[in-house]
Amino acid sequence: MILTFSDFGHCGPYLGLMRRSIARVWPEATVIDLMCDVPAFNPRAGAYLLQALRPWVGRGDVVLAVVDPGVGSERHPMALEADGAWFVGPDNGLLERVGTTAEHLRCWGIRWRPDSLSPSFHGRDLFAPVAAALARDAEAAVPVYLEPRIWRSRGWSPSWPAVIYVDHYGNAMTGLRASAVAPGSTIAAADQTLSPARTFSDVAPGVAFWYANSLGLVEIAVNQGSAAECLGLAPGDPVWFSSRAPEAD
Amino acid sequence: MILTFSDFGHCGPYLGLMRRSIARVWPEATVIDLMCDVPAFNPRAGAYLLQALRPWVGRGDVVLAVVDPGVGSERHPMALEADGAWFVGPDNGLLERVGTTAEHLRCWGIRWRPDSLSPSFHGRDLFAPVAAALARDAEAAVPVYLEPRIWRSRGWSPSWPAVIYVDHYGNAMTGLRASAVAPGSTIAAADQTLSPARTFSDVAPGVAFWYANSLGLVEIAVNQGSAAECLGLAPGDPVWFSSRAPEAD
Amino acid sequence: MILTFSDFGHCGPYLGLMRRSIARVWPEATVIDLMCDVPAFNPRAGAYLLQALRPWVGRGDVVLAVVDPGVGSERHPMALEADGAWFVGPDNGLLERVGTTAEHLRCWGIRWRPDSLSPSFHGRDLFAPVAAALARDAEAAVPVYLEPRIWRSRGWSPSWPAVIYVDHYGNAMTGLRASAVAPGSTIAAADQTLSPARTFSDVAPGVAFWYANSLGLVEIAVNQGSAAECLGLAPGDPVWFSSRAPEAD
Repeated sequence: MILTFSDFGHCGPYLGLMRRSIARVWPEATVIDLMCDVPAFNPRAGAYLLQALRPWVGRGDVVLAVVDPGVGSERHPMALEADGAWFVGPDNGLLERVGTTAEHLRCWGIRWRPDSLSPSFHGRDLFAPVAAALARDAEAAVPVYLEPRIWRSRGWSPSWPAVIYVDHYGNAMTGLRASAVAPGSTIAAADQTLSPARTFSDVAPGVAFWYANSLGLVEIAVNQGSAAECLGLAPGDPVWFSSRAPEAD
Repeated sequence: MILTFSDFGHCGPYLGLMRRSIARVWPEATVIDLMCDVPAFNPRAGAYLLQALRPWVGRGDVVLAVVDPGVGSERHPMALEADGAWFVGPDNGLLERVGTTAEHLRCWGIRWRPDSLSPSFHGRDLFAPVAAALARDAEAAVPVYLEPRIWRSRGWSPSWPAVIYVDHYGNAMTGLRASAVAPGSTIAAADQTLSPARTFSDVAPGVAFWYANSLGLVEIAVNQGSAAECLGLAPGDPVWFSSRAPEAD
Repeated sequence: MILTFSDFGHCGPYLGLMRRSIARVWPEATVIDLMCDVPAFNPRAGAYLLQALRPWVGRGDVVLAVVDPGVGSERHPMALEADGAWFVGPDNGLLERVGTTAEHLRCWGIRWRPDSLSPSFHGRDLFAPVAAALARDAEAAVPVYLEPRIWRSRGWSPSWPAVIYVDHYGNAMTGLRASAVAPGSTIAAADQTLSPARTFSDVAPGVAFWYANSLGLVEIAVNQGSAAECLGLAPGDPVWFSSRAPEAD
């Protein structure tokens, strides 16, 4: 199963072309668009989102991860084999967190190049064919497409105290793992202090709060309203918390 | 075949995670996103939209319906077996119209609970696995996941004279069934009176009109323009008509 | 494989219903949404976009192309068999460029009509079933659904010097084929003159430029910014270039 993870958005032919490119290699591939509106040009936000989604990537799954503002430059294409799942994408930090937290990790560079490589769309021309080949038969694909490589961690911290995504309801996900924040801690963002709640229906409509979202992240929300609008939050905005819990990576 | 019907929007990881959750139970499932931008937090609008889409749900299909502002609260998860099709979702009115209009109806509560249940995302953790199991083999799934339950109708009327959806062209669907409005009747909305037309190309560009849309609903539209912008219409806005036709449920 | 190409947007039930309609004819069909936000009501922009996407349509693929502002009027439904691929859609110019550039072309009218035909949604009721039948078994489907027809070219030029699409990053695709513009030529649009670059990362953040995009079209872009916003560009806006290259159709 191939899971796409990108900043392409739903607009335009980008997701469709990447799917068509996968189908050229493996017409029977099952593809799920896990997320296609990672904050644009922001591999760091992507890294923390991808890590939060990691429990939903199964053994043998291949994540095709493309947030690639440096496409066409010297950044390298890479693949990680992390605890039985594959991650294919640019070496720009996007795979940093899933690599760092893996128990069993093998790091590969992608040495294969297509006959025709658009300087602006490696997702379609380079990453998709490699992901499709790995999903179809990883053992056969590795020697054809990959070469061993040294894993170099960027050393990013397990939590990133910043907004990493605003969803269509206006909820603001942060890169803070809820497990790193002590229960009952307040969260500060945009000059406001927010109390915790278990979920939306536990507060009155219109009330802002934070909660441990379904990905295990601290999320700032307003019941039946838009936290992003009410508080003026956008990706990259910092958040603070009053009380830390012990955190392992 | 599983048909998703939700207010998740296309943004974020929500649809993707629900699909991944389905695939955990049944990797070979065919899934179609029937509609994912039902007006948010609005099960009533969802109920009338779902009823209008009902003819496109086939025997054996499972509709995974998640418009769930009360997620995590005491509202019950439920499943309906209605004339050979399944509907899985929260007991908040969303399934009211498809239940009420079914000739053969069986109502079930969902007694199964997953090992891990996010208080904010039952679509992924609870409804998707149940829908997948029912789609794969309903006979086997019923005793594992469901328990009989009394169907309690909310008694909503067959038509709801209000805007229930505005599409990306700016057309405003209403909860009025076109068959309930006499041919030639005018429709009033937002202080304007609109004449009927057969379809867009029957009026000049820029002209507002109403017509029986492809779902059998009264829809307010502007040829090659946005009725929502021109008339200032939004979901929930009331509409009136000059002349009724006899209506059965 | 069926590739949808439409101006439906991702909102509403339109794409989902078209998929469900395909599944009624051929439940096992593989469907990829190649692009669903072609500029609305603009078959001409669609024609140039579809032609640019043509290399990604394989032999035996069926493109279900629906940009159909005249739906319900006298425009005819048609199908093209072009170099081994099928294109199904309205006869309004949308298929003009893929027809004109085909080496081997057969043109068909669609004579089949469904039992129930919505005057506003031929994509679901007419084009989707025909596309599904052709994708499943073209030889069997042709005598049932189609009738021979004369191909009448509109004689549109190989390039259209106008913005034909603005993507979610704000990049403005034009109908100019990059191969028709001399290397090093400047492009003028919205009272600005733009120099060429190979790709985004070759210019500083915030700088506007033009480049040959991944579809072979001249595209106006701003590195890590929105060309549409910075320059005020929208579909239909004209563009000029300083130096032409010889162009064949």
